[in-house]
Amino acid sequence: MEQPVLDLSQDAAAVTAQLVDIPSVSLEEKHLADAVEAALRALPHLTVDRDGDSVVARTNLGRAERVVLAGHLDTVPIADNLPSRLDADGILWGCGTSDMKSGVAVQLRLAATLPAPNRDVTYVFYDAEEIAAEFNGLKRLAERHPDWLAGDFAVLLEPSDGKVEGGCQGTMRVRVETKGRRAHSARAWLGENAIHKAAPILARLAAYEPRQVPVDGLTYREGLNAVLIEGGHATNVIPDFCAVTVNYRFAPNRSEEEALAHVREVFDGYDVVLTDSAPGALPGLSHPSAVAFVDALGLEPAPKDGWTDVALFSALGVPAVNYGPGDPKLAHTREEHVAVAAVLEAEEKLKAWLS
Amino acid sequence: MEQPVLDLSQDAAAVTAQLVDIPSVSLEEKHLADAVEAALRALPHLTVDRDGDSVVARTNLGRAERVVLAGHLDTVPIADNLPSRLDADGILWGCGTSDMKSGVAVQLRLAATLPAPNRDVTYVFYDAEEIAAEFNGLKRLAERHPDWLAGDFAVLLEPSDGKVEGGCQGTMRVRVETKGRRAHSARAWLGENAIHKAAPILARLAAYEPRQVPVDGLTYREGLNAVLIEGGHATNVIPDFCAVTVNYRFAPNRSEEEALAHVREVFDGYDVVLTDSAPGALPGLSHPSAVAFVDALGLEPAPKDGWTDVALFSALGVPAVNYGPGDPKLAHTREEHVAVAAVLEAEEKLKAWLS
Repeated sequence: MEQPVLDLSQDAAAVTAQLVDIPSVSLEEKHLADAVEAALRALPHLTVDRDGDSVVARTNLGRAERVVLAGHLDTVPIADNLPSRLDADGILWGCGTSDMKSGVAVQLRLAATLPAPNRDVTYVFYDAEEIAAEFNGLKRLAERHPDWLAGDFAVLLEPSDGKVEGGCQGTMRVRVETKGRRAHSARAWLGENAIHKAAPILARLAAYEPRQVPVDGLTYREGLNAVLIEGGHATNVIPDFCAVTVNYRFAPNRSEEEALAHVREVFDGYDVVLTDSAPGALPGLSHPSAVAFVDALGLEPAPKDGWTDVALFSALGVPAVNYGPGDPKLAHTREEHVAVAAVLEAEEKLKAWLS
Repeated sequence: MEQPVLDLSQDAAAVTAQLVDIPSVSLEEKHLADAVEAALRALPHLTVDRDGDSVVARTNLGRAERVVLAGHLDTVPIADNLPSRLDADGILWGCGTSDMKSGVAVQLRLAATLPAPNRDVTYVFYDAEEIAAEFNGLKRLAERHPDWLAGDFAVLLEPSDGKVEGGCQGTMRVRVETKGRRAHSARAWLGENAIHKAAPILARLAAYEPRQVPVDGLTYREGLNAVLIEGGHATNVIPDFCAVTVNYRFAPNRSEEEALAHVREVFDGYDVVLTDSAPGALPGLSHPSAVAFVDALGLEPAPKDGWTDVALFSALGVPAVNYGPGDPKLAHTREEHVAVAAVLEAEEKLKAWLS
């Protein structure tokens, strides 16, 4: 494959189409990372670093404040939705249009067109966000080069439908398990039915009232849900195990330890095995940079229900928000698309804020 | 493989060892069926028929009563437990010793040594009992040659540990299902959790008090049990389905229709999908032939908790019981074995009854 070249003189919507047409499924971002690196190195006002398929560029103007604009280069697997297609209604279709090559295009356009922003800016483009956390490029940068991510405030250009989303919820998964004793189902009284023993687990989940938690003026809606259940061996055997996988989404003012303690309390009397956990991120909207950002964009901030990499910035002590042109509901769908107008609006608003 | 020859002049325990040493895993019974057929055709007082790998032999003495003695030739897969081995304590070890080549050996010995029994006797040896019902040789004979199975009373020589087991329970499986609506688990309020909706299904099962039903003086213990449960798609998705597979074991005085109506009543308000069903068999112990049989053997009858092919005879209008030398708890185990003394006792008792 010939190395593709990005033309950053076009607007952010046109750049989005260029990016979408360079496939970059997770762990196969090299071509796109090469193109992004080459385009950034051509800009004399930036210094550029690379680690694996992550690229970081920055201005070095000695401004009082530094902001980080971050986005991931990878997409979920292509679902027969490439190359991109612009329809007559100004909608651009294709894998990654929404999540999140439109956001990456806005980053690249700002990098190209703002040689002297009013704040120093670090542009972070990273790999492997869409797969297991161990591969996450931003996590790797935070471990190997935390200085590359330093800043007073960060904006993650994940799709947020043009809203400013503060912080994010934590997420945790546990297996709540019961044990029994096998027996032939014709002689059930010789066994102990582990599936029947799971009845109170489901009853507690069904009766559970999730909290609605105000944090920094935003209301986070928690959730405690069975997402998987499995039990039993064969249709003539009394089952000796049952396991309910429960996902707890918790407001960012609750730590992982507190969240686990809460889950253990709900399932008191049962074996609770932690399988994975990620902390939330406080919205940090009271930080002056965040206030200025929200004011500049002129939008009401909203809570982020899901989990995003803003939590990684939060763990580094950098207040962070989500703001991007895509629609999160379209992420990972075959029908993924973005409105050209939304991409241009994001470009314009961020440019105004940094000018 | 040279065609093996059975020597029916030896006692039933020795014949058991001969049978065990001719492997006959389900659908691979040909060699054994050939040997059984050849041994029976050598007996001038019997007429012999064959269908596939099932062999049926009978006396034709014009007696007032005809009894059927039936057993299957196949075994479960060999578990490193062949050839047979007779230990110093008089225990014969090996695949099929208990289930049910010791029973088949008793049939063959009676066929060979009783040229003029006091009742006409039909000896049925059939294939493929240990696998899915569609392959069952007795079922095939009942469909193709019901006259071959005609009789006033039947004894199935399945292992019953030397007890007389009257009739058998029915068995039925249903899927009790809930439906919901998928959503991202970070926004659970947009979905409807099908696993949570299953809570009352498990609660009803846990609270269920199975009947203990007297039929013809025997007490059958019913059972209603979840044997499998599954639900959910992924750990970040609110599940839109949950299915509990329930096995109902019901006393033989309840029909399949009545059993299903009962299950539907228990799970009122839920989708109940019938997946499979087999009727029970009434013990029929009040039939004169059965009374004579139980008296002759001098044992207390017991109920059969499981399901056996006596139900097939029952469906043909032939009262049937289980009586065999093996131990049903050893069936299908690597440690399968039978006591020589138990085999000889069964041979002796049945011979006394037919003399």
